[in-house]
Amino acid sequence: MLVVAEDFFKHVDAGNTTNKLGSKVTPVSVNELFGLNTLGISLARIDFAPRGLNPPHIHPRGTEIVIVINGQNRLFTKVLNKGDVFVFPIGLPHFQLNVGYGNAVAIAALSSQNAGVITIANAVFGSTPPISDEILAKAFQIDKNTIDYLQNQFWYDNN
Amino acid sequence: MLVVAEDFFKHVDAGNTTNKLGSKVTPVSVNELFGLNTLGISLARIDFAPRGLNPPHIHPRGTEIVIVINGQNRLFTKVLNKGDVFVFPIGLPHFQLNVGYGNAVAIAALSSQNAGVITIANAVFGSTPPISDEILAKAFQIDKNTIDYLQNQFWYDNN
Amino acid sequence: MLVVAEDFFKHVDAGNTTNKLGSKVTPVSVNELFGLNTLGISLARIDFAPRGLNPPHIHPRGTEIVIVINGQNRLFTKVLNKGDVFVFPIGLPHFQLNVGYGNAVAIAALSSQNAGVITIANAVFGSTPPISDEILAKAFQIDKNTIDYLQNQFWYDNN
Amino acid sequence: MLVVAEDFFKHVDAGNTTNKLGSKVTPVSVNELFGLNTLGISLARIDFAPRGLNPPHIHPRGTEIVIVINGQNRLFTKVLNKGDVFVFPIGLPHFQLNVGYGNAVAIAALSSQNAGVITIANAVFGSTPPISDEILAKAFQIDKNTIDYLQNQFWYDNN
Amino acid sequence: MLVVAEDFFKHVDAGNTTNKLGSKVTPVSVNELFGLNTLGISLARIDFAPRGLNPPHIHPRGTEIVIVINGQNRLFTKVLNKGDVFVFPIGLPHFQLNVGYGNAVAIAALSSQNAGVITIANAVFGSTPPISDEILAKAFQIDKNTIDYLQNQFWYDNN
Amino acid sequence: MLVVAEDFFKHVDAGNTTNKLGSKVTPVSVNELFGLNTLGISLARIDFAPRGLNPPHIHPRGTEIVIVINGQNRLFTKVLNKGDVFVFPIGLPHFQLNVGYGNAVAIAALSSQNAGVITIANAVFGSTPPISDEILAKAFQIDKNTIDYLQNQFWYDNN
Repeated sequence: MLVVAEDFFKHVDAGNTTNKLGSKVTPVSVNELFGLNTLGISLARIDFAPRGLNPPHIHPRGTEIVIVINGQNRLFTKVLNKGDVFVFPIGLPHFQLNVGYGNAVAIAALSSQNAGVITIANAVFGSTPPISDEILAKAFQIDKNTIDYLQNQFWYDNN
Repeated sequence: MLVVAEDFFKHVDAGNTTNKLGSKVTPVSVNELFGLNTLGISLARIDFAPRGLNPPHIHPRGTEIVIVINGQNRLFTKVLNKGDVFVFPIGLPHFQLNVGYGNAVAIAALSSQNAGVITIANAVFGSTPPISDEILAKAFQIDKNTIDYLQNQFWYDNN
Repeated sequence: MLVVAEDFFKHVDAGNTTNKLGSKVTPVSVNELFGLNTLGISLARIDFAPRGLNPPHIHPRGTEIVIVINGQNRLFTKVLNKGDVFVFPIGLPHFQLNVGYGNAVAIAALSSQNAGVITIANAVFGSTPPISDEILAKAFQIDKNTIDYLQNQFWYDNN
Repeated sequence: MLVVAEDFFKHVDAGNTTNKLGSKVTPVSVNELFGLNTLGISLARIDFAPRGLNPPHIHPRGTEIVIVINGQNRLFTKVLNKGDVFVFPIGLPHFQLNVGYGNAVAIAALSSQNAGVITIANAVFGSTPPISDEILAKAFQIDKNTIDYLQNQFWYDNN
Repeated sequence: MLVVAEDFFKHVDAGNTTNKLGSKVTPVSVNELFGLNTLGISLARIDFAPRGLNPPHIHPRGTEIVIVINGQNRLFTKVLNKGDVFVFPIGLPHFQLNVGYGNAVAIAALSSQNAGVITIANAVFGSTPPISDEILAKAFQIDKNTIDYLQNQFWYDNN
Repeated sequence: MLVVAEDFFKHVDAGNTTNKLGSKVTPVSVNELFGLNTLGISLARIDFAPRGLNPPHIHPRGTEIVIVINGQNRLFTKVLNKGDVFVFPIGLPHFQLNVGYGNAVAIAALSSQNAGVITIANAVFGSTPPISDEILAKAFQIDKNTIDYLQNQFWYDNN
């Protein structure tokens, strides 16, 4: 197999944030760009509408380092502006909320060619087959009716 | 520093399951047994009372392989009995519920000397400082009052 | 290829110890459980009859951490009882003798999906083709007749 | 040592490109941001004036994935525009020239907390102590006078 | 596939140094000896005529440790004699010149089954397609005519 | 700490083979050459008198690739001559006997800065504290008197 420059190139457009979370992640992992195979790194562009949320999630196989290109993001209790860089160590749950008045864009790099993403709410309440409501009620210390309500939501995946 | 056999030895007693989750994890990681340093492996004993739950959690730095020694466990939709072995790949959220009538014991091995554990409910609703209720309400698609109720629970850590 | 829960599950029965060593190792490595592929960990159950011996051996690709579930084991000069944990760093020759009056069981975890095992006596005296008796006589400082006697034994493999 | 959120945060300003190469690399490696320690990833912002050059160099300990944020870059024979992503495997010599009419900005991620950079011309002609002109004349198939001229240049480091 | 002893064996003859560099590298990497697959090490024999040069190069995927078997080598400003050992960390540009009166031989080991080699002059001036002379002129601070001359040389590869 | 070229340099003389094994291993690992730290490779020179033996041993943390520089070696059932290369995968027991009429020299590279060596006869019969003769008698299928005789030998270490 001949390797050509195109195997190492990909164009990334702005993501469409017209969805219930108001955010869109556009990954450039080994699934999108085959030249990343064995190289241990990948990239993603994250677009946010105003108040758009990239909800609490985990990357099971990679640390993330993110830089805000445009707009203003909240991560935990910290507000990040254009040019700010933040690191999320592997496996740490994290999220980003656009707290500015306009759109926001961030570039995230991940220390794996295929870091994976587990959106916590979706994994817990939207899994197929579902986790039994007894288990979730005990784990989240909440009544089964609320658990059943949560399990009947449609869980949007912004990735 | 002289290395002696005691650096590679530790006794593990049955864990006390008299708590709100009805389970107790007793780790043997590099924090408990210094001889594991650089060796890339650790162990844990997990004790369960009847209906005891090891709640949904992830290990950010290790894959887990678990064997049931006594009793009957449910993992996802699968029931495991004595002698059954199950594997949870790194970063995958998982839980165990004792569905038998008696106590249960499992031995878990992890592919890291310090695999870490993030109990999902605690990380999301019990973090210090707290995640804002706006973010959790949006991520979990639930009203802010329920989020506030959840954030005011005491989040027991069975590790 | 679709991955299903069964790829991560295996049942392990007690091993048959009616053999000249009085011990049986039942591995759960990637050879027995395909879901372990790339995950860097495996398990084994070790059964011992009274005075049963898991003879001096090496795992060339993994560190072992072992916990005694039932009975009493001797490792080197140390006696281990139920609940005791011991670590054998990668490549270290080690053995286990059941010094109790009843059967014994241990669970061993290894820091590789396929840690391998080299039983020292078998590798040295039972290899095919055989190592020349000149070499073994020089290495073990023993006469060639004793070497020839050893090379004519049947070398039982308890793995 | 207590780890705080600030250990994982850094602000990055636009680089000053008023220099003979017309480019400036602003790294965010473990040297600038201690929280990257052990995490295997880092970032850099690269600013270019019109016709600014990030000269041929290698990263000895990391693969680079770069995204053009503004302007137009040439890498090898390929022109990259805003939103284009390119990958340079570990150890591969590469360069970037701003072929647009305005300033350009790129974000580069590297698969190491400290990927290092060896600017080829500087390493070969500007090293201390100098490589003998006999060796360079033979390696570059060029007369010693030209080598001596090259070794007497001031080699600007844009990192 | 059955593995046999021949998969781990290879004979290496003296290299032919009758070429414009006066040196020849004979690699024993996974490309020449399949048994090295997954083992993370390889070897090379390097032969030098008097004044023979192994020109400035980089191994992008491995550290090199070299021992002089016969003759006298110069590395950087250091002269090495028979029995001298030197280490080149991964990615570091290095070269060897035979400064003795007779032939020289060195054995190099590399910490990868396929460490790769990038000969700097060839990569910069002999690449296909060529790097534009504007870029090389700017990077090497030399006029375009000299760059064009260099690009028209035949770049011999001693590997 | 300033790193200087001397940190990466070491001279190795021929080993003294006037001992009961007729062989001498001279290692260049991180213990002898600090510059190897973190670099994952090391070297050794092995000298043999006629009929000299490097006895059965394993390297627990590294694969070995060996090249015969002078003389004739037997490895397993294979005879190696000058220029022959052989690979011993990590953890594999191996040995070398000089079957030529003169002295022999080999250069071995190992895929670890500190690959370790466990000489099998010494580890089994010469350990401190000793392994009980009951265990060795059972493992080696030989009477306790012979075991006691072996344990009373002086076990020479050629490393």
